[in-house]
Amino acid sequence: MTLDLNADAGESYGVWSLGHDAALFGLLTSVNLACGFHAGDPLTIERSVKLAHRHGLAVGAHPGFPDRVGFGRRDLAAAPEEVYADVLYQIGAVSAFLRAAGLPLHHVKAHGALYNRAARDLETARAIAQAVRDFDLALPLVVLPGTPLEAGALEAGLRAVAEAFPERGYTRDGRLAARGQPGAVVHDPHEAARRAVAMALHGRVEAVDGGWVEMRPQTLCVHGDNPNAVQIARAVREALEAEGVRLVAF
Amino acid sequence: MTLDLNADAGESYGVWSLGHDAALFGLLTSVNLACGFHAGDPLTIERSVKLAHRHGLAVGAHPGFPDRVGFGRRDLAAAPEEVYADVLYQIGAVSAFLRAAGLPLHHVKAHGALYNRAARDLETARAIAQAVRDFDLALPLVVLPGTPLEAGALEAGLRAVAEAFPERGYTRDGRLAARGQPGAVVHDPHEAARRAVAMALHGRVEAVDGGWVEMRPQTLCVHGDNPNAVQIARAVREALEAEGVRLVAF
Amino acid sequence: MTLDLNADAGESYGVWSLGHDAALFGLLTSVNLACGFHAGDPLTIERSVKLAHRHGLAVGAHPGFPDRVGFGRRDLAAAPEEVYADVLYQIGAVSAFLRAAGLPLHHVKAHGALYNRAARDLETARAIAQAVRDFDLALPLVVLPGTPLEAGALEAGLRAVAEAFPERGYTRDGRLAARGQPGAVVHDPHEAARRAVAMALHGRVEAVDGGWVEMRPQTLCVHGDNPNAVQIARAVREALEAEGVRLVAF
Amino acid sequence: MTLDLNADAGESYGVWSLGHDAALFGLLTSVNLACGFHAGDPLTIERSVKLAHRHGLAVGAHPGFPDRVGFGRRDLAAAPEEVYADVLYQIGAVSAFLRAAGLPLHHVKAHGALYNRAARDLETARAIAQAVRDFDLALPLVVLPGTPLEAGALEAGLRAVAEAFPERGYTRDGRLAARGQPGAVVHDPHEAARRAVAMALHGRVEAVDGGWVEMRPQTLCVHGDNPNAVQIARAVREALEAEGVRLVAF
Repeated sequence: MTLDLNADAGESYGVWSLGHDAALFGLLTSVNLACGFHAGDPLTIERSVKLAHRHGLAVGAHPGFPDRVGFGRRDLAAAPEEVYADVLYQIGAVSAFLRAAGLPLHHVKAHGALYNRAARDLETARAIAQAVRDFDLALPLVVLPGTPLEAGALEAGLRAVAEAFPERGYTRDGRLAARGQPGAVVHDPHEAARRAVAMALHGRVEAVDGGWVEMRPQTLCVHGDNPNAVQIARAVREALEAEGVRLVAF
Repeated sequence: MTLDLNADAGESYGVWSLGHDAALFGLLTSVNLACGFHAGDPLTIERSVKLAHRHGLAVGAHPGFPDRVGFGRRDLAAAPEEVYADVLYQIGAVSAFLRAAGLPLHHVKAHGALYNRAARDLETARAIAQAVRDFDLALPLVVLPGTPLEAGALEAGLRAVAEAFPERGYTRDGRLAARGQPGAVVHDPHEAARRAVAMALHGRVEAVDGGWVEMRPQTLCVHGDNPNAVQIARAVREALEAEGVRLVAF
Repeated sequence: MTLDLNADAGESYGVWSLGHDAALFGLLTSVNLACGFHAGDPLTIERSVKLAHRHGLAVGAHPGFPDRVGFGRRDLAAAPEEVYADVLYQIGAVSAFLRAAGLPLHHVKAHGALYNRAARDLETARAIAQAVRDFDLALPLVVLPGTPLEAGALEAGLRAVAEAFPERGYTRDGRLAARGQPGAVVHDPHEAARRAVAMALHGRVEAVDGGWVEMRPQTLCVHGDNPNAVQIARAVREALEAEGVRLVAF
Repeated sequence: MTLDLNADAGESYGVWSLGHDAALFGLLTSVNLACGFHAGDPLTIERSVKLAHRHGLAVGAHPGFPDRVGFGRRDLAAAPEEVYADVLYQIGAVSAFLRAAGLPLHHVKAHGALYNRAARDLETARAIAQAVRDFDLALPLVVLPGTPLEAGALEAGLRAVAEAFPERGYTRDGRLAARGQPGAVVHDPHEAARRAVAMALHGRVEAVDGGWVEMRPQTLCVHGDNPNAVQIARAVREALEAEGVRLVAF
């Protein structure tokens, strides 16, 4: 069995550092690079591409809302045509650095509030999927399975790559628990690792509101901006490998 | 004899309109689209690409300094690596919309204070040229002939396309006269047309400080943001065609 | 009877012009100046304050969401503490130009999606009201009467100034009709003027969904960014004056 | 003898942290808060004002160029009227948070490339000084003594407060050595402390190019964004106090 292990990365901005990319990249198989709207800037993208290249990672674009001060985490009532153009712009920008480095653009994954909006609103999902498709029909779109985001991707003829979050609590209906809620964020690396194994090998994990959530993830996401991101990524990786899972980019 | 007639375009931003793209595009052979740093935004780029497509124009990227409130017209002491990354980012962003429209990216031309800095500073010129080359070695870079900008383009192995400005006064040494100086800007369409013919067919034009400037332009630029931009473009086009010049993209 | 006639103004940005401030200011009694977040920039604010001063207008601050490319018209899920800080920042910025001109800050009115969010969400309204109060308890806050925005203002001990929109359709419950809806925007100056008289003198106006909306406005708003803004302002002003209403700032 | 010890602060932005404000504030007598153009945002300003208040610090505004990605450290050819308006805007914005906290605005100090430009260009200095004066004639402006920045402040009738940098090397003519130059930045806390004593008590310090620079500083600046900022501030403070200097805001 193979699995991808991804993290959002390249989230620094100008003089401001964020995340633990240098330590984290050695544990991952793919990264999603911020594209300059919610985080990242041209120099940061360039450096992140080079760092990912040195680690042999697959590199995706991670477009978000144009809300830098809010880190793209605040919902914005952007019209579908705005979402389409914003996503296409960001994919193009990141892809130029990959092209300069002789690397392909591997996938696209929406960030934060844009991801969440697309996971509940089909029009937003369609706008994202159309931008990906117009750029390159062969480009996979990472999705939260069972949501409009997955539906929009499939409808556009894209490969929809199912993602799961070992550090995040789920509700019974397969949505991510809101960050304020108890159990919404898992801080213990061992618990995150246990959940990763449950998700990947047993196809299900306990919901925060009782019962189980079924899933068949093709990629697991660890958050690069958590204080213990590196420990979590290492624990998740080791637990999966101990179970015989081979970690490779999807 | 053939010649290209270009204008900077796509310079609106959000609700704010600028220029006369709809009226002007019918008179041109190529346009340089603002890329979202000094002007333009994703939706504006998308619309501008479609408008250019309908008019059969060749479309280039027009990257500028990240100074929207100053419209990229204020010199900024950006380091060469910042210029490189900013230009590569902007080329990539615009090229994504062209790709979505099934059009090639035709050329690159720097905007405003970035163009001027590159025309006097070889390090800046090299940074721009390297970004163009890393994106696509076959992409022509529009230059002010006889300046470090041309030298940087040639040094990088790029095709350097010589540009001239019929509406702008020149000093004897081939530089553009500073905007405040008498004769720096030509407002009369007939005078602009006369100068266009002199530049294109006779290879020289009067300098504002006496004497002549020799030039062999491959493209003439008319400014899209002037109140009488359309009249000037029409007069220039008609005068050139009356002299037997065939207007086609370089 | 006296009434205030206001418009949003100072909505240009950098090289980009918007609105008809020069022609409109002679017809108004107060203006709400964009503060640099959704529109406006420091030079524009300075010029707008001077223009308002020459016309003897009362000048208010018009804070909006930090969404320039969307002109502050897209709802943003900003937390109350973010709204508080954003509004306080913008009030302070505009008030500095008034102070330099020897003018008082006359009032505060939220813009676009921030106004709309506060008109339906009490937490947002409280955040705005607290910012106004912390800056100056004597500063009036312009509100849509009957909404949480008014409640938040009164709760904070502020003077809540009731506003009505002669150019905008209302639903029976006193809300503004969504812009897409039939009757949501009145384009005819005479109809706008008739509605202004109905609002101001008869205390009610026809709703787009049947029936009437009761209101007692202290200020009427005309939109500065409409193509016929000047004609509407003139028609509204003349109709009110013909009915004996004296137009003065509240 | 009394002296002020200041640092630039409030330089975080959104989710991005910078500096060591919490640890540093206990060692200072005044701070210069970033105003949202090169660093800082409304929430950061609010929190920084409260933190400074708890430590009993005098709080000044620290306006910079509108260049966030460059942290205001890149020279920008802003016209004097742009500098005037940008500075006035930023002073007003920060002063609103002080007003809300019941604190006075204590001083103004320009940041980075704006400070450097004003230290060599009188027109820029005049623009800054006029903005300070138009806001409040009693507001001191922190200056590099012997430069056009000091001349502009005095010409405007402002109190010019002479600043010195124990961590920075000087050239013989009293300018700061360029950051790339050997000796331009002092990293050793003890050496910084020794220089602080030399500057404050002996009125001179060794220049990087030989000889001495004479100075009579009223405030010493330690940089908040250095990795060892806290150690340097503590060493400087202790060395000055050991010499009997009483540290109080100017």
